[in-house]
This record gives sequence, structure tokens and C-alpha cells, in this order.
Amino acid sequence: MAQELPPEADVVVIGAGLAGLVAARDLIAAGRSVVVLEARDRVGGRLLNADLGDGKVVEVGGQWVGPTQDRALALADELGVATFPTHAQGDNLVEIDGGLRRYRGAIPKINPAVLVDIGQAQFRLDRMARSVPAEAPWRAPRAEAWDGQTMWTWIRRNTATRAARALLQLAVEAVWAAHPADVSLLHVLFYTRAAGSFDDLVGTEGGAQQDRFVGGSQELALRLAARLGDAVTLDAPVRRIEQRDDSVTVSSDRGAVSARAAIVAIPPTLCARIAYDPPMPALRDQLTQRMAQGSVIKCMAVYDAPFWRDEGLSGQATSAEGPVKVIFDNSPPDGSPGVLLGFLEGRQARELAQWTPEARRRAVVGCFERLFGPFAASPDAYLERVWAQEEYTRGCYGCLMPPGGWVSLGPALREPVGRLHWAGAETATTWNGYMDGAVRSGETAARAALAQLAE
Amino acid sequence: MAQELPPEADVVVIGAGLAGLVAARDLIAAGRSVVVLEARDRVGGRLLNADLGDGKVVEVGGQWVGPTQDRALALADELGVATFPTHAQGDNLVEIDGGLRRYRGAIPKINPAVLVDIGQAQFRLDRMARSVPAEAPWRAPRAEAWDGQTMWTWIRRNTATRAARALLQLAVEAVWAAHPADVSLLHVLFYTRAAGSFDDLVGTEGGAQQDRFVGGSQELALRLAARLGDAVTLDAPVRRIEQRDDSVTVSSDRGAVSARAAIVAIPPTLCARIAYDPPMPALRDQLTQRMAQGSVIKCMAVYDAPFWRDEGLSGQATSAEGPVKVIFDNSPPDGSPGVLLGFLEGRQARELAQWTPEARRRAVVGCFERLFGPFAASPDAYLERVWAQEEYTRGCYGCLMPPGGWVSLGPALREPVGRLHWAGAETATTWNGYMDGAVRSGETAARAALAQLAE
Repeated sequence: MAQELPPEADVVVIGAGLAGLVAARDLIAAGRSVVVLEARDRVGGRLLNADLGDGKVVEVGGQWVGPTQDRALALADELGVATFPTHAQGDNLVEIDGGLRRYRGAIPKINPAVLVDIGQAQFRLDRMARSVPAEAPWRAPRAEAWDGQTMWTWIRRNTATRAARALLQLAVEAVWAAHPADVSLLHVLFYTRAAGSFDDLVGTEGGAQQDRFVGGSQELALRLAARLGDAVTLDAPVRRIEQRDDSVTVSSDRGAVSARAAIVAIPPTLCARIAYDPPMPALRDQLTQRMAQGSVIKCMAVYDAPFWRDEGLSGQATSAEGPVKVIFDNSPPDGSPGVLLGFLEGRQARELAQWTPEARRRAVVGCFERLFGPFAASPDAYLERVWAQEEYTRGCYGCLMPPGGWVSLGPALREPVGRLHWAGAETATTWNGYMDGAVRSGETAARAALAQLAE
Repeated sequence: MAQELPPEADVVVIGAGLAGLVAARDLIAAGRSVVVLEARDRVGGRLLNADLGDGKVVEVGGQWVGPTQDRALALADELGVATFPTHAQGDNLVEIDGGLRRYRGAIPKINPAVLVDIGQAQFRLDRMARSVPAEAPWRAPRAEAWDGQTMWTWIRRNTATRAARALLQLAVEAVWAAHPADVSLLHVLFYTRAAGSFDDLVGTEGGAQQDRFVGGSQELALRLAARLGDAVTLDAPVRRIEQRDDSVTVSSDRGAVSARAAIVAIPPTLCARIAYDPPMPALRDQLTQRMAQGSVIKCMAVYDAPFWRDEGLSGQATSAEGPVKVIFDNSPPDGSPGVLLGFLEGRQARELAQWTPEARRRAVVGCFERLFGPFAASPDAYLERVWAQEEYTRGCYGCLMPPGGWVSLGPALREPVGRLHWAGAETATTWNGYMDGAVRSGETAARAALAQLAE
């Protein structure tokens, strides 16, 4: 990694997450000089491996990849990072209305009236999503009405049973790390459209949680950064961006770099924390005031072995009771050690972020015990990440549009401002919010910057 | 104003708007040393006078004061700033469904079914608002349901006529400078409760628009600052706040000051643009990611005289057609020159902020002409302020809570973080968002800082 910041480059990239690193790769491949400025002391952004010992890792950030996420898969292929299937053999668990039930496959064994209720809602969501252009959600035929309401309102009006409402809320929390009140219906539809369908978002086999990366997802960022070598500078939070007619100067805690274009590959809400000269246009600034990060605490308990597999359980569970509402078997490929992964999402994440780590651990492990029995009560280790506390992320998984945002501010999300190009998973029109979207956004921004350099 | 920043003070105040200046006044009165750091080259924040010549002014920012705004009125009294009534004699105009009608008093001459419809909605809003504790809206009995939906959703479900919907939307735009989709119903109820009633918010005589300040509202800030003298430093945007066990150091473009407490008297969304060490807690940061400034462009056309008065018109008009939806006679106390004031609010403000000033002027003056006749077509001068373009405000009138915000992030709005105390109109529990709320918040924050200093 560079110790001395070069005073000039063709392009400055801000953020060494997947989007920024991919953009830098493409710019360098096109023969351009690049400086990547990263605020943290590591690369990867929301991708972060944790060491389990013995060369094993789990991810405390983003981890999954699935079908149609072609650009993320192509990147893994290029970098020699293999994938393996998320463990899904055995019975899943569902806890709702005070009862705990086992089931196999995608459809939980609950009251058929509830299943019909959920199925109808999901059918309607998919149908609506198909009419939303992912590159311009504000042009959807019913954009005004869909952006006028929260997902909470829509769920209340489109379900007949309490259990269906609870499970749909759980799905929203699991996919967006937000309470349904936090999100515009139009944002849910846009995001669904960008992924394909609602099943693509929530599914394990055949869906976004289908596969994992051998060595952990951060390996993608680490290998990209290794190729970029001196081009990446860590510990360099960017404070100020000055644009002039023929150049842009990016000032960081490690110094300033002048360039002919810049790619800002950080979430919109963090873009607002940079000072711009000239200041951002009104529309762009108002967007970055509103498009806020979700809240999630990713928690893992590590056991000698995945004991639940012996009982015919997959390790996957959903609980309407919480506070952990979604659980996965997150053991390494060889099943050793055994790892249960639980998500605290939305309001649970905000509430429990205020607890002591010890109290949080007790609550999470208590959930695991309630669902998987007494063996779960005594993990060998416990890992967690409170993403809203991370100064240079401030929430996960990604940024969400509140009601009213897409219709009146949407065009400012991707529109370049002078020599500044926006990248990051939030700017993607395919698999928005996912690693695949991040890769695509980096590729798109690099093309735009190259075109500007060629002018 | 100070040229050299002292290295130390008892308290640093960030922001020389009304809240910060009042806080500084109270701290100095209590014998404490204070440094006020202001990003701009002037004091007053969202209060800003514009010169009309001949010693006359109008305000391009906040301007009105009304009954029960006791702290703002007491401040004016203390500073010797007199008030005078907003011009309200004559007939008002209402433009809806393609027709333009004159009426006298508070109730427009429109279809009685529409009036009943609006009256019922307003009755319901006031009744709900009475159950919202202004100091803790999340404790309202129905907080979850009210914060789960937008004001847009509520209006759609609680009105029977198209015209009532249009006029309620117009009222929301006029009071919050936002589209009803942008705002949580619970925020509307909280804000209504903090003011008193819906009529208190929208009213001229007897309401929040009843009176104006002789010499312009910025006179309050200018006179306060004059008393504070060297304590106020302009052109000093704050970039970083470091808290240690026994001190807080505030770094600005004009240098750093160490103190025992700090009062941050800027809107929540701008608080997010300061770097904190240690970083803000998760809940506080997530709040500042979401509580965003409204959008308004305040526009005034200046004429030789208020010609509309000769035709028996008050100069007050509401138009569902827009783009200017709310108009007032904003002439100086002696009625010379004549000034028509029009607001572009919410989506109109965002849309027209992207136009050229000339195109915007044509649209606004075109509205004035449509409503007040051909004399209005040729003003002697035209003034406007696009508040979302102001780097150190980024929207007006104030910050709004999107759905889901109050219930899960509300407590972080006013809770001090170590030695940092939050002030500004957005933190007030009485007349939130108004000058009166700003004054109260400054007084409250000063008391809290003094208590901390006495520990």
C-alpha cells in the first residue's frame, strides 16, 4: 500500500469497497493512473472476514452470492475465489404464534390461510415490481401512489391475517435491515425489480443466499487490492472535493490528489459528509440527506460442530418472536467448526445496539437455545458486528429510500456532478444493494470516467 | 467580531442562528466564557433580511411570529424589536378546480362538501395530536401506527373529496415545506401538538403568521450578536469535535477551541457533516441520516405600491394549481413598496430549483399575474432564496421525520452525548421548527451546559 500520496492521477477513487476497487481495476486496465483513497485501515467496506483460527473464516459483513449475480460471479472467477453452497440440508424451523415447527423446503408448515395470504401479497408485489423501470423508478405508472406510502401501510392493507403480516415484516427486515415503516413501497418494488423477484431476494437455493465464497467474501476485495498495489491508500478519509473547470482535487487526511475525474464509491449518506466546492446541487444534497443506511447487527455463535445437523435440522430458522428473527448455518465448507448466524435487524438492531455486548450476546444466544436446544447455550466463541457504529459505514446492508424520495429526488442518485461519478451498490440498477450491484456500479462508473477523460 | 480565536472557553456554541445566539447570551449572563463559531459570513442562520432600499427590508428566510410564541416575543421585547400585524385586510383568493374565488376571513368560499371534508380531517388531526406528548412522541398511544404511515396515506384515507385532498396537501406543503409523502403522520401530529393546534400552524390572525418584526426578523440575531461582540466568530465552519474525559475540542476553518461543554445549534442533518471523535453513537447517527430539511424557495415581487389593496384584496391567496401555492402581502409596515410573497414548496421547490433564475421568476410572476391581474406582471424587483442550495442550511424551513423515525430514533434527537448538547428549532418541544422553538432550545441547552459545568 502506498505511503506517499502522488499529487496527481487521471482518476481518484473514493472508497476501497468492491465498487471502488472494481472501478480502479477497469481504469488501470484502460491505461489510466488511479489513486484509491480509503478511510479505513483495510479494504472491503461492508465485506469483512473474521478469523476462526485454523485458516477458517466467517464474514461479519456481506457474504452471499446467487444466480443471475453474474458480475460478482465473474469477478470471483477472475480472482480465483471459489463458491460453495449455503448449508440447506435438513429441516428448517419457523417460530410463530408461540409455536415452533419444522418444515422442509421453502414453504413453512403453518396455517394454510396464512400461506395463501402471504402468497397473494407476494404475487401482487412481484406484479407491481415488473412495472417499475429499475433505471428510473419514478417513471413507474403508479410511482406517485407507491412512493406516497410506506411498506408498513401496504402490508397492513394487503394482508388478512396477523401471521402473514408478521412474516412479511420479517421478510422486509431480513432483506432491507429495516422496519417496513422505514421504507417506501416504491423502493421495495424497485429493489425487487433490480433483483428479479421477491423469491430471488429471500431465497436460499435459487436465491440471493444460495452460495458463499471459499475464504470469505472479503477475499474478493483483498485480491483486487493486492493487484492494485500502491494505487490504494488506507487511513485516508476524504474531507473535501474541489472541482474546477479542468480538474478535481480530493483532500484526505493523508493529503490531496488532483485528477481529471473522481469516482465516489461510498453510500449516499456518507457522500453528504464530504465538503464540496462548489457545493452539491440542491437535488443531490437533499437526496443524500434522506437516503439512509439500514440497521443490522450480524451475530455468530461458534460451536465445536454443527450439532443441529445431527438432529436433521438445516440450521435455518425464522422467528416472529425475535429478537433474532433470521438464522442460518454459517459453518465453513467442511462443517467445522459449527457456526450459527443470527441477524438483528431494523428496530431490534437499533434497540440492542444500545445494550452492553454481554447483554446482547445473552439475548442472541438465548434465541439460539430456544430454537436449537440446550447445546446452543454454550458456544465456544461469539462474534458480532454493529454496523451502525462503524464510522465509515454507519449502517447496513445499504441505503434505503424513504417515501417521497424516488419520485422527487431519484434522478440525483446516479447523475454525475461535473467530474464526479457516483458508484457503490446503492447506485446499481441490477441487484441494487448486493455485491453484484457494487461490481456493476464500479464497472459503469469506470466507463463513464473513461469517456469523460477521452473528451 | 473576533479575529483571533481564543484557545479556550467554558462553552463553545456551534451556529450563530437564533438558538446558538440565545444560548450564548444565557451562558455569558451566567458568567461563563463563550465562543460562538458560525460557518457563514453573517449571523442569523435561516433568518435573513434583504434590503429594499430607503431603509426598508423584507425577509428571505423565517419571518413570522404569533400568539403563544412567548419566548420569541420576550426576546424581541428585550432587544427592542417591535412587531406589526401581517397585512390581512380585504378579500383572500382561493384558486381550485380551475376557478378563482374571493372570500373574507379564514374559510374559503368553496363547495360546502369540501369544507366539511377538510373540517372533519382537521378535527381528527387535532384530536390525535392532543394524545402525542411533544417531549416524547414515541410514547403516543398509537405511535406505532401513526409513525408507520405517511401524511399522504392519511390524507387519502381520511378525505372524501379531491378538493379537500388538494387543500390539505397544500396546507402540509405550506407548514412543512414538504410533500405529504415526505412526512410521517406522527411527525405532523407532534409538530401540531408542539404548536397547539392545526389552526395555530396555518392561521394568520391568531396563528403563526399573525405578526412580523419591524426591521425584519434577522434584527433579532443581529442585535443579539452585537451584544455578544467578540464572542462570535464568522467564516468558521466546524469540521471536527473531539471529546475527552474532561474537555471538548471544536475544530473549525478558523482554528480550534477547547471547552468544557459544547452546544451544537444547527439542524440534525448538518450535525451529521461534522466528524466526531469518538464517533457518534449508532442511534444518534442513524437519526441524523434521516431527519432531513424540507425544500422551499421564498420568492418576492416588489411593486411601487400594494395595488391589490385598492381592489379590496388582502394579497393572501392559496392556489391548488401552483407552482406558487401560498401567497402573502409582505409589504413593509407602511405599505411601501408593495411586496407579494410566494412560496414554492416541497416538490415544486425541488423541481424549480433546477430551472434558471429567469425561468423561475417567469413562473412565479406568472402566478402572481394569474391571481392578481396584469399589474402584477411587471414588478420593479424580484427577490428569491433557494434554501436547499445554501451550503450551511441545505433546505428550509426545518428538518422533518420520515416514517419510522420518531418511534425508533426519537430519543436521540435531544439526548446529550457526553459534553455535547443539541439545540436549534428542531429540538424544541414547544413551537418546534419556529423562531420561538429556536429561542426555547437555546435557553434549554444553556441551562443543561451550565448544569454540566457546575458538576
